[in-house]
Amino acid sequence: MSATSMSKEEAKKELALEAHEYHANPIPGKYEIAPSKPLGSQEDLKMAYLPGIKHVVEEIISDPSSVYDFTNKNNTVCVITNGTAVLGLGDIGPLASKPVMEGKGVLLKKFGNVNGVDLEVNTKDPDEFINCVKLLGPSFGGINLEDIKGPECFYIEKRLKEIMDIPVFHDDQHGTAIITSAGVINACHLTNRKLEDIKVVFNGAGAAGIACLQMLLDCGVKNENAFLCDSRGVIYKGRTEGMNEWKEKYANDTELRTMEEALEGADVFVGVSKKDALNPEWIKKMNGGSGDNPDVVPIIFALANPDPEILPEKAKEICPNVIIATGRSDYPNQINNVMCFPYLFRGVLDVRASTISENMKIATAYALAELAREEVPKEVEELYGRELKFGPEYIIPTPFDPRLLVRIANAVSQAARDEGNCQ
Amino acid sequence: MSATSMSKEEAKKELALEAHEYHANPIPGKYEIAPSKPLGSQEDLKMAYLPGIKHVVEEIISDPSSVYDFTNKNNTVCVITNGTAVLGLGDIGPLASKPVMEGKGVLLKKFGNVNGVDLEVNTKDPDEFINCVKLLGPSFGGINLEDIKGPECFYIEKRLKEIMDIPVFHDDQHGTAIITSAGVINACHLTNRKLEDIKVVFNGAGAAGIACLQMLLDCGVKNENAFLCDSRGVIYKGRTEGMNEWKEKYANDTELRTMEEALEGADVFVGVSKKDALNPEWIKKMNGGSGDNPDVVPIIFALANPDPEILPEKAKEICPNVIIATGRSDYPNQINNVMCFPYLFRGVLDVRASTISENMKIATAYALAELAREEVPKEVEELYGRELKFGPEYIIPTPFDPRLLVRIANAVSQAARDEGNCQ
Repeated sequence: MSATSMSKEEAKKELALEAHEYHANPIPGKYEIAPSKPLGSQEDLKMAYLPGIKHVVEEIISDPSSVYDFTNKNNTVCVITNGTAVLGLGDIGPLASKPVMEGKGVLLKKFGNVNGVDLEVNTKDPDEFINCVKLLGPSFGGINLEDIKGPECFYIEKRLKEIMDIPVFHDDQHGTAIITSAGVINACHLTNRKLEDIKVVFNGAGAAGIACLQMLLDCGVKNENAFLCDSRGVIYKGRTEGMNEWKEKYANDTELRTMEEALEGADVFVGVSKKDALNPEWIKKMNGGSGDNPDVVPIIFALANPDPEILPEKAKEICPNVIIATGRSDYPNQINNVMCFPYLFRGVLDVRASTISENMKIATAYALAELAREEVPKEVEELYGRELKFGPEYIIPTPFDPRLLVRIANAVSQAARDEGNCQ
Repeated sequence: MSATSMSKEEAKKELALEAHEYHANPIPGKYEIAPSKPLGSQEDLKMAYLPGIKHVVEEIISDPSSVYDFTNKNNTVCVITNGTAVLGLGDIGPLASKPVMEGKGVLLKKFGNVNGVDLEVNTKDPDEFINCVKLLGPSFGGINLEDIKGPECFYIEKRLKEIMDIPVFHDDQHGTAIITSAGVINACHLTNRKLEDIKVVFNGAGAAGIACLQMLLDCGVKNENAFLCDSRGVIYKGRTEGMNEWKEKYANDTELRTMEEALEGADVFVGVSKKDALNPEWIKKMNGGSGDNPDVVPIIFALANPDPEILPEKAKEICPNVIIATGRSDYPNQINNVMCFPYLFRGVLDVRASTISENMKIATAYALAELAREEVPKEVEELYGRELKFGPEYIIPTPFDPRLLVRIANAVSQAARDEGNCQ
């Protein structure tokens, strides 16, 4: 790395630190509590606090559901972690995860007008974590689990969904899965493939990988065509090393052992693993990877952050027409969770859905996919400085598309109403 | 009650409900999350979230104390309850206590510019509650316990102060005690009494009563001159019924058995009990209660809310010069916790005090007392529509006095620095 690029990196770091810091900003961190009712006079206080508050309390005692009418339970989601799987950094603990959780909190507000309160819980014991979240139920309208390592995250989410009366969502699993599914749906649409027919290889058997697999199964991909790999290769029936009950559930009855073998004839690769995990040469083995037929091209989701399993330019060297999505904002087709969780919670809270069901997640994926096929407003194209037209370089909407709020939230609300999943 | 006053009451109730409600306001509840950093563009997102956030996380990993520089831990206090002793309503549970906790949260912001996040914990088991609060330590800069019933509240506060590395404060105990002490200090000043000499009778041996007693002992009142009463009368050494370890600690070696007996020759009555608990006739037994000597008058703190142990007009019928304070805003000398907790936490957070010590509480009481002796700005008098001049009708500042912020916060910060109690 040259001296110039070093100092550029350093400058970026300084800017990011300053943007969060106390000394450069009178208020550190990324959000504040803003009173939404007047508090300027003794009369205001009597209304918002004593003695007026007593009437409100009595209403809630006589009708507990009215807590949604009189408090911000109606519009507040808890962004909660134990800090065991944060960004690509792993188990950094609750304290160091706080800026990330605050970030998720303000994104909920910015994009979904949902209050996101961050909580960092100091325990690695899943049952202790579960009990803490359970006890806090009355405070919130929903729970967004965040950056909890697998496989504990599966157990935690499952248990909390069983015992809580408010919706529970693990964004690292389902946010990624919903947007990836939207992308896969559209990439198949572009290449005239049916979900029922495609072969998909998943690399990474953690929270996101397993959720992406399950979501694509829910959307129509066949069990026998979905291959899950981890660092030891294909997860197959009878494998004994490095297994757990969740991997077991998705183990294939197959002779395939390595990811390279699994990629033979695969239509789609979904990577939620690590930098450079996809050898460019292997693309050639995928369906259309030879580049001979311009109508059949491989579909690649290289979602490791910030460095994907393969860089788009590397993939295109092998197969110029490949459809590729990453987690990065500096390439087309960014799979960014911010396109899902704020709007999903907006829709959930709007109808007081009691859970976030499979149908609601599928509806979200299809709403995202359909929006990408529509004409994009001029102002959104201007924001991104390029043409955004449904095609290989634009299979999913962009994060700053203002249509997302109404479209996604409405799709979620409608799906909840359709199945009578509202309080 | 006449038909007219009934409808007035109903109208007040309607106004209070409307002020909280969803349908009358697009956003229910009393606060919102307001992002304090720009989030309008992809560049902003890169700074506030990925990839910029990674630098911030790494800083906190390498220096955990920098979490105060980069996140709102610096300025955020948790207002937390289990809903077991809310207002005068008792054990109403966590859900119905939510509007009250939100109220405390926005008062922290309004008066102290501190973010107050409300949490309602669904357990009555003190140890489970303690564990939940402990686990949430990384999220906050301080803990404000609220509306937890005695005697559990004493155990909970004591234990949390031992195990947490951030300040823990139980406002129902210490907020009330600090402001009451400020009032007693000034009432003694006005009547030329010394704290060392006065006899004080406390009625109510719950959270606030015991804290008021301890605080006045810390300020100089002698143990043998402080008498604690509950619904069974004086708490004396050897009493066996209705005792607990906290009452035991303050039991007097005395022959006195009833509150009426204890009030004989008492200088000060502090009631944190219930409506009409102080029989007007008993005032005559207090020091100066006969009204013969205009220089010696009884001092009465009738703090039961919303209906005090005795109404000021009733007390004055017996003894026209009595100095009386209540919790009510429609009488002079309102003991309102809002004059303490927002500023106290402001001072605590400003210097990152690791605990809230006895010295810091004493400093707060004296700062409040001293402020009341100073000339009051015209605009404050206009706000209250009456003259505010140090004397029997103005022994403590008023809640909307803008000088409170700097005075109280500075006194708290200074006391913390003086004892080296800063991180």
